[in-house]
Amino acid sequence: MSVYEKLQALNITLPAVVLPDTADVMYAQSGNTVYLSGHLAKKDGKIWVGQLGKDITTEEAKLAARGIAIELIATLQAAGGGDLKRVERIVKLMSLVNSIGDFTEQHLVTNSASELIDEVFGEQGKHARSAYGVAQLSLGACVEIEMIAEIEWSAQFWWRR
Amino acid sequence: MSVYEKLQALNITLPAVVLPDTADVMYAQSGNTVYLSGHLAKKDGKIWVGQLGKDITTEEAKLAARGIAIELIATLQAAGGGDLKRVERIVKLMSLVNSIGDFTEQHLVTNSASELIDEVFGEQGKHARSAYGVAQLSLGACVEIEMIAEIEWSAQFWWRR
Amino acid sequence: MSVYEKLQALNITLPAVVLPDTADVMYAQSGNTVYLSGHLAKKDGKIWVGQLGKDITTEEAKLAARGIAIELIATLQAAGGGDLKRVERIVKLMSLVNSIGDFTEQHLVTNSASELIDEVFGEQGKHARSAYGVAQLSLGACVEIEMIAEIEWSAQFWWRR
Repeated sequence: MSVYEKLQALNITLPAVVLPDTADVMYAQSGNTVYLSGHLAKKDGKIWVGQLGKDITTEEAKLAARGIAIELIATLQAAGGGDLKRVERIVKLMSLVNSIGDFTEQHLVTNSASELIDEVFGEQGKHARSAYGVAQLSLGACVEIEMIAEIEWSAQFWWRR
Repeated sequence: MSVYEKLQALNITLPAVVLPDTADVMYAQSGNTVYLSGHLAKKDGKIWVGQLGKDITTEEAKLAARGIAIELIATLQAAGGGDLKRVERIVKLMSLVNSIGDFTEQHLVTNSASELIDEVFGEQGKHARSAYGVAQLSLGACVEIEMIAEIEWSAQFWWRR
Repeated sequence: MSVYEKLQALNITLPAVVLPDTADVMYAQSGNTVYLSGHLAKKDGKIWVGQLGKDITTEEAKLAARGIAIELIATLQAAGGGDLKRVERIVKLMSLVNSIGDFTEQHLVTNSASELIDEVFGEQGKHARSAYGVAQLSLGACVEIEMIAEIEWSAQFWWRR
């Protein structure tokens, strides 16, 4: 099954990506490496606010992390010129979990993002990862995840350099 | 305008870079990617101490972040063999904002660094970014920022490999 | 002295590496860059639990960070097809120190990891670094460190692409 068939089988529709005209952008490419900015958790189109160990549960935050993974895949599609089949490898995730001092399940929260990527990309989705508890996130979001991915090394790109 | 003309127009003089002889260094290059170590905020040559939400304001921390951006550009110049024109792209910033648990303006603090880089490097300055609240920083600094940049792929480098 | 002779001189035996069959893996390679996942501090084979400034000292955490460096080198050996001599450069460390709000010696904790890498790899071990205080780590670990390294660009790899 292709990446798109897997997304369909999982009943996932990728959201439209808005690329803001700001100093910092949703992704930047260098060579065949794409760096995706930290994506904040959202619920019903708004920032999903909460702090683990205080006012949001691990189960809720897993849904938030899975939602971020879907947003990251949508941004990755934009980075790949609209085609996810150009993605060679999901290389790394960094997952920031908004945590008070005694919450220690950052890995469980993040697993739902890793597992979705594994389901969609298979062997090419196996990634290195760091997941840890931060003191707070922009706008109070409960989770933020950034990604590094490898995009096809096209001959076009090579000769353009 | 070149990068140097823009720096001059902004009335910015790059500080001298001291490269310490330690196990960890100010930057490391791999291929045409340069990784800059986390740079701590400074005021009058000393670490700028403070925690957001407690004893330093967003406006003050924005000045601190802008100052770090200038330090990063100075280190980048050293990495580029003394010539910022060899910088192809500012790829990514990671901004660590020393925050107590209810401060949620990490993105605003970091914007001042992103915007300076945008002013100096233009399109080549558009970067991916993560900005978040950490529990504490080395020596109590209020902000720490690290950078990934792409340096010109020189024929000299290529053949040396 | 080779890397292996240095390890022997330091009386260090690399631990066996278990590569779990999960969505996130111990390392991922892209081109000649290897990204190692965040490795948690261990003591006697179990997670070394503790928070700096509260229930573990800087001296203890330095031992923990040194132990992580050894684990990272073992994973790097696995990434290099069993041969550390294929490592061209230790490029970057990111060190997460589990800290309460007034602990500011994250750099001292991390130095023990940086210094071991310096002892083992010499000039090739000089790395960029960020070290900072996080609110909490998975399973309560006191320190977590991730690594980026450069592996030999083999002709075999090149032609396989």
